[in-house]
Amino acid sequence: MLRTVTLLGATGSIGKSTRDVVAENPQRLRIGVVVAGRDAQALARVAIETGASFAALADAGAGPALAQALAGTGIACGAGRQAVLDAVAMESDIVVSAISGAAGLEATFAALTPGRVVALANKESLVCAGAAVMARAKAVGARILPLDSEHNALFQVLGTEPISAIRSMTLTASGGPFRTWSAAEIAVARPEQALAHPNYAMGAKISIDSASMMNKGLELIEACFLFGLEPGQLEVLVHPQQLVHGLVTFRDGSVSAGMALPDMRVAAAHCLGVDGRLDAPAARFLDLALTAPLTFERPDLLRFPALGLAIAALGAGGAMPAILNAANEVAVAAYLEGAIAFPGIAALVEAVCASAAPDAAAPSDVAAALAIDHEARNRARALLSRAPFAVT
Amino acid sequence: MLRTVTLLGATGSIGKSTRDVVAENPQRLRIGVVVAGRDAQALARVAIETGASFAALADAGAGPALAQALAGTGIACGAGRQAVLDAVAMESDIVVSAISGAAGLEATFAALTPGRVVALANKESLVCAGAAVMARAKAVGARILPLDSEHNALFQVLGTEPISAIRSMTLTASGGPFRTWSAAEIAVARPEQALAHPNYAMGAKISIDSASMMNKGLELIEACFLFGLEPGQLEVLVHPQQLVHGLVTFRDGSVSAGMALPDMRVAAAHCLGVDGRLDAPAARFLDLALTAPLTFERPDLLRFPALGLAIAALGAGGAMPAILNAANEVAVAAYLEGAIAFPGIAALVEAVCASAAPDAAAPSDVAAALAIDHEARNRARALLSRAPFAVT
Repeated sequence: MLRTVTLLGATGSIGKSTRDVVAENPQRLRIGVVVAGRDAQALARVAIETGASFAALADAGAGPALAQALAGTGIACGAGRQAVLDAVAMESDIVVSAISGAAGLEATFAALTPGRVVALANKESLVCAGAAVMARAKAVGARILPLDSEHNALFQVLGTEPISAIRSMTLTASGGPFRTWSAAEIAVARPEQALAHPNYAMGAKISIDSASMMNKGLELIEACFLFGLEPGQLEVLVHPQQLVHGLVTFRDGSVSAGMALPDMRVAAAHCLGVDGRLDAPAARFLDLALTAPLTFERPDLLRFPALGLAIAALGAGGAMPAILNAANEVAVAAYLEGAIAFPGIAALVEAVCASAAPDAAAPSDVAAALAIDHEARNRARALLSRAPFAVT
Repeated sequence: MLRTVTLLGATGSIGKSTRDVVAENPQRLRIGVVVAGRDAQALARVAIETGASFAALADAGAGPALAQALAGTGIACGAGRQAVLDAVAMESDIVVSAISGAAGLEATFAALTPGRVVALANKESLVCAGAAVMARAKAVGARILPLDSEHNALFQVLGTEPISAIRSMTLTASGGPFRTWSAAEIAVARPEQALAHPNYAMGAKISIDSASMMNKGLELIEACFLFGLEPGQLEVLVHPQQLVHGLVTFRDGSVSAGMALPDMRVAAAHCLGVDGRLDAPAARFLDLALTAPLTFERPDLLRFPALGLAIAALGAGGAMPAILNAANEVAVAAYLEGAIAFPGIAALVEAVCASAAPDAAAPSDVAAALAIDHEARNRARALLSRAPFAVT
């Protein structure tokens, strides 16, 4: 059976992985709709390459450029918020939700329709509004499949086991480019150093989050909502080889580990194989006899305070994860612009979280989540001008 | 709900693990019937300790000793083949089949009754009559759960995935006490050296099989029948840390690894947790941050030819796995008696397999399996007197 895919975030790294998997399985998958943020030329190329019938950009201002790039191709297009929602509403079997940032939240919500599979890579959907997203999926009868390597691995090894069977879940982390750096070295890390992820080529925001380990903190929050666990049931282990992506420890002492080569296409292939597993992307398989020894160590929360802040936000619950996420987006942008030093990222996030009402409720819908997000960003920007966050 | 367990092989190492798990979960499990081979005193102690209502020994000659040891306890007993079958026929929810050797085959077959869970640790049931055992379980509606660490791990991570989703399965091996020994050193290995397994305290037969890696070969054959795979889909990796017990590689490149501390009670707890997972035996959990790096290497079939013979027997199919197993039992006994050197084990097995009709059919029932076993043992004993197998 030929399944139709709507690809949100078509021009990013997960979009590329998804396109690769679809291209290898033309008898089972086709891409119908592609959506991206603001790069009209890139989206037009993707739309033509994939044979999509509709392309939409979130940035309304880029609409004319997209229309011009697609002129004569027969591919319809649109731009702006409503165009994205229209794209999501078009019929498809699978929606890959890989628009990064809070912008992906509304599209993910809209994608949750009866019988659909939503392959979710937009962290913010679960970090900012996890309870609401999971409740909506359940209410409408949509299936959320996690597209992150870590969550996908955990999802696979959990299988049909009930949550009551779980003692804990472990997400692994590469440790990022600063895994072996001293605190003093990290304090003066330049953006180009922070962007050098050891295993994956990813966007700038997620690369910086990987360097600070905030990425793993956000994933921890995601996992908590995705699987319905208590915050204390989640932990992180640094595993530089990045072959084990997640582990489920069951009550009885059995541990199931989800593994794969560090290749985002593997998780994409799992999510897209809704009628039975696809063949391996590029026909590559993990061979443990050829790999380095697998090592695991606890994360160092002193050198990587962002992870500790995320754990604290998860424990605090309510609106705090959304506030943490918004503050981090502002902080990372400021770091990339040279406005603050690397430790300023965590310091700014901490300050924003500390200034938030500790008992603010979790958002029950998109509007509430976006309001929390908006307010936290404003607070972060206001704090940014103060001395401790400036470049030293 | 309180489940009743019939324990075949009650005095062995798996019997002990099972008893430990039951003792930790008195509200969910109780042992009703215990069966062992020939040690009347040990079985009587176990019967009293577990509160069993019936005890049976396979060795008819040990019946009077068992009756005497249980006099006044109120525990009924019997001895001999029919007593064992009577014991198996007594009502219970779970039968743990852990009598080692071909002797466990008949009892396992008899244990397969409608609705029952048979936790299977008797290798020979699947090695000698795998197709027949699996067919019977399916026909009567019994559930076979594997109790070996490796098969249990594979069973758990396979979950509800269809066999068509599997590319391959990997069983791990400790490598045994001779993992780092040269062929010349192995050639003169004494029984007490071969018995020194690095991770488990086990019976003599299985310890020698571990040293020769025939154990892993037999497990490979078991896995093939248990999961319904093609012989070429199974492989072995040496993993000295014995924390990963088995790996399923799916068609799409995802790999699920079954892990646990090297403690037979974990697999026992899984099999006995038929109404939901039990709590971990002795409350011990794997902590990867505290373990040595995990390493994997391909087995050396030159130093461990027994593994190659088992792979060849699996490929040959038909009666060959049963012949291999019978020859190995005779060879191991001869080695333990000092009648042959360590390499003589594989040499005798090879000679017996080479002299067997290559197209003998797989046994379709217990009688046929036992006939093949009997004939192969006779052939092995006849060959034993010849020069190449004598102690050098």
